[in-house]
Amino acid sequence: MSFSAEHKYDPNFTQHVIDTCGPKTSPRMKQIFGAAMRALHGFAREIDLTPEEWLAGVKFFNETGKLWAESDGKRNEMHRLSDITGLESLVTEIANFVQTDNPNYSPTSAAILGPFWSPNAPWRQLGESVIQDKHEGIVSYMHGTIRDLSTQKPIPGVVFDFWQASSNGKYDFQDPDNQSDNNLRGKFKTDENGEYRLYCLRPTAYSLPQDGPSWQLLQALDRHPMRPAHIHLMITHDEYKPVITQIYPKDDPWLATDTVFAVKDDLVVDFVPIKDIPASMSEHKGPGGAATKELQLDIILAPKGMGAHSKPNL
Amino acid sequence: MSFSAEHKYDPNFTQHVIDTCGPKTSPRMKQIFGAAMRALHGFAREIDLTPEEWLAGVKFFNETGKLWAESDGKRNEMHRLSDITGLESLVTEIANFVQTDNPNYSPTSAAILGPFWSPNAPWRQLGESVIQDKHEGIVSYMHGTIRDLSTQKPIPGVVFDFWQASSNGKYDFQDPDNQSDNNLRGKFKTDENGEYRLYCLRPTAYSLPQDGPSWQLLQALDRHPMRPAHIHLMITHDEYKPVITQIYPKDDPWLATDTVFAVKDDLVVDFVPIKDIPASMSEHKGPGGAATKELQLDIILAPKGMGAHSKPNL
Repeated sequence: MSFSAEHKYDPNFTQHVIDTCGPKTSPRMKQIFGAAMRALHGFAREIDLTPEEWLAGVKFFNETGKLWAESDGKRNEMHRLSDITGLESLVTEIANFVQTDNPNYSPTSAAILGPFWSPNAPWRQLGESVIQDKHEGIVSYMHGTIRDLSTQKPIPGVVFDFWQASSNGKYDFQDPDNQSDNNLRGKFKTDENGEYRLYCLRPTAYSLPQDGPSWQLLQALDRHPMRPAHIHLMITHDEYKPVITQIYPKDDPWLATDTVFAVKDDLVVDFVPIKDIPASMSEHKGPGGAATKELQLDIILAPKGMGAHSKPNL
Repeated sequence: MSFSAEHKYDPNFTQHVIDTCGPKTSPRMKQIFGAAMRALHGFAREIDLTPEEWLAGVKFFNETGKLWAESDGKRNEMHRLSDITGLESLVTEIANFVQTDNPNYSPTSAAILGPFWSPNAPWRQLGESVIQDKHEGIVSYMHGTIRDLSTQKPIPGVVFDFWQASSNGKYDFQDPDNQSDNNLRGKFKTDENGEYRLYCLRPTAYSLPQDGPSWQLLQALDRHPMRPAHIHLMITHDEYKPVITQIYPKDDPWLATDTVFAVKDDLVVDFVPIKDIPASMSEHKGPGGAATKELQLDIILAPKGMGAHSKPNL
């Protein structure tokens, strides 16, 4: 063949599909649909997608939606598919693109939300533990200060929403036999000094489920299903841009090849042997007993309106 | 912004995702995954896909798979989504790309399979009717000769698999209250003269279902949901390349804007007032009485091995 894939097939087809949009299509919808059609058709032409491969793809996506339907939304396999293809991580990068004049001074990086956040996490008092149930993990004392990117002053009243998997690698709603609702979840509010403190587990690396479409894809790609150990955080305040992120112990072996591509350098942290606990706090009395590790993590929030997220001009 | 979208975001991210493929990935799988990731990530960067839009997309695809799961596979909404985005039509074009020295001499064009083919269509005798149930359509006599592309000789023993919607725009398994199994479906075999003949309905234009994710998308794009009237055919013989196609009456108002983009010029046909019926055949005695229209449709099949479908060199 001496002519390229672009010319081999009907060169007007994709534009014809896009041009069927009627006049009442919103400009954003038309932009999304046009870009999606160019990407989808370009993909099919680039690889000469066969009918058998296309039908396998239809079945793959159907099976992915089926898992969601059959679990009443608890297992969001389509969300997971977004994660193992890097899409959620990329969307997170796009959403958090902030320009500042000083490239060395940035808000805390964002990382993907993932499929395990719950809107129902309970409010807990500062210094309380999120550990409700038996575990085989390392009880840790986590604390820090949340500061303003522009003034560097502490911010009181910040909502610090925390969730993590247990030492068996499962979140509460994946593991009803061993965990009560909201085990290892909790929302805290920073005090007048912009500080938060709580007891939690040093996180444990875990595998994505080894069944279902995402696992089939990982196997076909000869990839491992491991996420590095991590803690999820969603940090919000009316006057600041929210930060949804994850933190990772620095000695985790999966940092470089995280199966959902969510690790960033400034999110790698160090759990150290515990030294002292503020006199105002009682020792951890939940499952697992006294804390033996400590993590100090300060967070920097950008005020709303600061920086410019470059948006297409619609 | 003085720099392009390509440089605004991490330029190494997509290649990093592709490079996680292990050494045991098949070459074809690696090619498909690489092209898919470049298309998917390029799409997200081009339009600055927002988290809300991405989550709406996850939900959209989940709902699409849910319809398939809840209908036990009878409603293949993901397949329909492929159709209204032109993907199945494009895959059909790619699969049927045949090079011949004479551009004026081509096999009958292919068109999409669609979600309504059944593997269980009954064998029927030449001259029989596919009309089992009451209808408000026009009974038609359809006949023709199937020929070899290279020799132009008639081909005996070709399987002529026929299916169509009834006059209410529904296929048998969408319409169990009005239609019996295999109404308007049938497999015929050409005789020693390469001829087929049967009674059917002049087809009726219909709307895709006006519920579910595909309908939501069509509404968001301000598009109509109409398919032009058509008959589906799957024509197969061991020694020839199969032809899966559709034919369309020439006076249909939806030919130019078929919602699944399946119309091609050589597939537009003319139903004419009936003139005569071969003396060997009795008149149509099924629902609807005597035939009043006639369609002659000859088909041309390419021998296997003829023409070269350009494939990537793997």
